Amino acid sequence: MSAKPAVVLLSGGLDSTTVLALAASQGFDTYAISFRYGQRHVYELEAAAQIARRQGARRHVVVEFDLRTFGGSALTGDLQVPKDRSADEMGRGIPVTYVPARNTIFLSFALAWAETLQCADIFVGVNALDYSGYPDCRPQYIEAYQRMARLATRAGVQDEQRLTIHAPLIQMSKAQIIEQGLQLGVDYALTSSCYDPGPVGRPCGHCDACLLRAKGFAQANTIDPLLLRFAAPQSAGAP
Amino acid sequence: MSAKPAVVLLSGGLDSTTVLALAASQGFDTYAISFRYGQRHVYELEAAAQIARRQGARRHVVVEFDLRTFGGSALTGDLQVPKDRSADEMGRGIPVTYVPARNTIFLSFALAWAETLQCADIFVGVNALDYSGYPDCRPQYIEAYQRMARLATRAGVQDEQRLTIHAPLIQMSKAQIIEQGLQLGVDYALTSSCYDPGPVGRPCGHCDACLLRAKGFAQANTIDPLLLRFAAPQSAGAP
Repeated sequence: MSAKPAVVLLSGGLDSTTVLALAASQGFDTYAISFRYGQRHVYELEAAAQIARRQGARRHVVVEFDLRTFGGSALTGDLQVPKDRSADEMGRGIPVTYVPARNTIFLSFALAWAETLQCADIFVGVNALDYSGYPDCRPQYIEAYQRMARLATRAGVQDEQRLTIHAPLIQMSKAQIIEQGLQLGVDYALTSSCYDPGPVGRPCGHCDACLLRAKGFAQANTIDPLLLRFAAPQSAGAP
Repeated sequence: MSAKPAVVLLSGGLDSTTVLALAASQGFDTYAISFRYGQRHVYELEAAAQIARRQGARRHVVVEFDLRTFGGSALTGDLQVPKDRSADEMGRGIPVTYVPARNTIFLSFALAWAETLQCADIFVGVNALDYSGYPDCRPQYIEAYQRMARLATRAGVQDEQRLTIHAPLIQMSKAQIIEQGLQLGVDYALTSSCYDPGPVGRPCGHCDACLLRAKGFAQANTIDPLLLRFAAPQSAGAP
């Protein structure tokens, strides 16, 4: 068991689940990290726990803090999650579901864990195409984060074990991500993307995340197994 | 009240308290942020609350999370806090009191708050001289963090309101910091530096933080009012 360790940010959504499978397929021993930060779609953490187990993560930790302290997002505050927006509307500016500095905070906890694991690889499922407006999903942001992170740690001072922030999905379409994941055997029925889910993670079908996911499966010419799971009358409560 | 807002990292120690006074003296409306992260010297948070009030911070928030999840430091784990080390010993390598990625995590929460406050200035009391080995106290780290942070946020996308990470103490000696603070009217009797304090924050007098503080006051030719507070028999319990 001399595989190299990698810390993988795992939200329980489609993208991060694919990234977890990708990291494992590249021979890394995966350490999954999730966050309970006051998100309204906290069901995703149940999904993340199941996925981490199913996909053989060596460990899975959930870090807790409350971003509602600061507000400023529909995902943590009183703002409504927008529904039934067109692709044009989604492409215009930064949506209210953007959470200030969220990826920066998430990556910083991943960096702390990576340092104690003596691990030089962090994987994150950011994607620059779906929301071109999300500042912390852009390649130049990830590049700058990596540069900072290499200076932030013990390993950086010793100038060895150069840390890499892997963002393998950053230029992929949702359909390409799904095709990649299916090749790797990902069970997307376990994943949760919805920003405003009902009981046991039932997707609302109308938020940006649900619509982008539906478009991705359509373009990949395959049916979303999550919808099948909720469509089957006997399985509304469990996968 | 049209002063510009600034987020100030406030641990309750000597350095960050001086920085809070400096930011206010430069005309900023200060928003102080502290962290309950599983530190053994949690007394510093009581100090921080008092200091924020006394120095007129507009708000003071305490963000909670648990870095003991990751371990790797004497400040959060089972390792012993080193005592009675010489200056030579302190200068050698990174001490066990270093907390992996702590400043990166702290600054990232400050960044989130700054973004929701539409604030372009963050102050942090890092210092490169006392521990030349702390990776996340070096000027090149702060510069890289600022570059990343400018790309991480809404303001960065709009390419306006360029964020600044102010680290005004980074090249100052402890004596210079104390002299600066005294000129600004800082009451150092309220501050708490000790890594391993006793009841009501009584400093141990032997950890690196106590020794560096004592050396700073000695070089500034002044007596530490915190020691006077604990020396006076009637005032061991309260300032």
